[in-house]
Amino acid sequence: MSELGPDPAIVLVRPQMGQNIGAAARAMLNFGLERMRVVDPRDGWPNPDAVAMASGAGGVLDAATVHANVADAVGDCDFVFATTARSRELTKPIFSPEAAMEYTRQMQRDGRKVAILFGPERTGLENDDVAVANAIITVPVNPKFASLNLAQCVLLTAYEFRRQSADVLHEVLSMPTTDTASVIEVDKLADHYEQRLDESGFFFPETKAGGMKTHLRNMWSRMPLTRQDVQMLHGVLRQLLRKKDL
Amino acid sequence: MSELGPDPAIVLVRPQMGQNIGAAARAMLNFGLERMRVVDPRDGWPNPDAVAMASGAGGVLDAATVHANVADAVGDCDFVFATTARSRELTKPIFSPEAAMEYTRQMQRDGRKVAILFGPERTGLENDDVAVANAIITVPVNPKFASLNLAQCVLLTAYEFRRQSADVLHEVLSMPTTDTASVIEVDKLADHYEQRLDESGFFFPETKAGGMKTHLRNMWSRMPLTRQDVQMLHGVLRQLLRKKDL
Repeated sequence: MSELGPDPAIVLVRPQMGQNIGAAARAMLNFGLERMRVVDPRDGWPNPDAVAMASGAGGVLDAATVHANVADAVGDCDFVFATTARSRELTKPIFSPEAAMEYTRQMQRDGRKVAILFGPERTGLENDDVAVANAIITVPVNPKFASLNLAQCVLLTAYEFRRQSADVLHEVLSMPTTDTASVIEVDKLADHYEQRLDESGFFFPETKAGGMKTHLRNMWSRMPLTRQDVQMLHGVLRQLLRKKDL
Repeated sequence: MSELGPDPAIVLVRPQMGQNIGAAARAMLNFGLERMRVVDPRDGWPNPDAVAMASGAGGVLDAATVHANVADAVGDCDFVFATTARSRELTKPIFSPEAAMEYTRQMQRDGRKVAILFGPERTGLENDDVAVANAIITVPVNPKFASLNLAQCVLLTAYEFRRQSADVLHEVLSMPTTDTASVIEVDKLADHYEQRLDESGFFFPETKAGGMKTHLRNMWSRMPLTRQDVQMLHGVLRQLLRKKDL
């Protein structure tokens, strides 16, 4: 059981609009998921609208398998998640996308196969669909405004799976947390330098002036400047110009 | 500096389609973000297409402020992120959405104000926009297929911010990791029980039969069954029926 299992299968249950199937394929491929399964699509298969929308992700559709029902679609899997927003009578463990994909990664390492069910656009998964699943994924949306569409729900799930892979960048900048100069202070500092340097003929030749100015502004805003730094740098500039006037 | 700062401002820089502005408002509100700023929108402001698309998230648009340029839009902020996919000549710290929102939460706790820039649909942010920012956010998309649209980019950022709040559910199920029954084995077990119970008149009255069957199937799939459990439960059923035949 030590061989790495496949990436999770994304199972679209009775999807309606071909456009949404194509958008789901794009969402998957954005985060490297390529195993799509489609259960009883309303408009048959293949679906030209899905192909048109998928664009560069058409390969995901070409490789998709079509199934008559949910049980058939996930028959080879070891664990099935059902994505659903509504609270239900069915009592199942409820996972956040984060916890679900963490557990999926763990199962994958154990060589187990995972599928994730996504319901039809309007109605979502029915109780009979959820009954097939081992657990539920609920995205922690704003209870006062929950309006994720199918492709967005697939996107967030695929993002979570990808986020938890080891090769994703997690750089954090260390910064002083107090007395940092505000953006407007840094911007005024950049203005001050740009204006005085312009007057001094620094931005030469003219064809390169735009790029030089951008580079300089970028340098200021990249720096973790404190208010004192900014005051000092204004002072430096004034002082340099004052000396020049002698 | 101990008062909690506001949620991050979402700054749409020179957005083109009103529909995408509305979709961004929906994406924000899905994860509780309500502070939108719009820089030089192509089609003016207010934008009827944006309002139509925003639907229940229209309040986000009503409260949005409009600005002539990026520096004006983020002038009151202490820290600015620029979202951009492309590698650039400008050297800035690059954050994953996760690390960026972790740092945003930290700055918020210190009472600091954070803004996040999102570029126009086709071209993304220009170098001059990025130059205003302190750091870059890059979503870890598939290098072979990167096709996030504006609202999706806002959605992932808002999701990350919300995910890292303390009140989000992070339940993880504990499960045996070896010898777990597959979905098809559990499904066959459910079939077996359903069929025999049906024959025995268990699902009565008929109006409640559907709900009872769903409930039973749900129970099976909720259980962390091993292969041995499944074999045993098949045996239990067979044994019970055998006894009845005596």
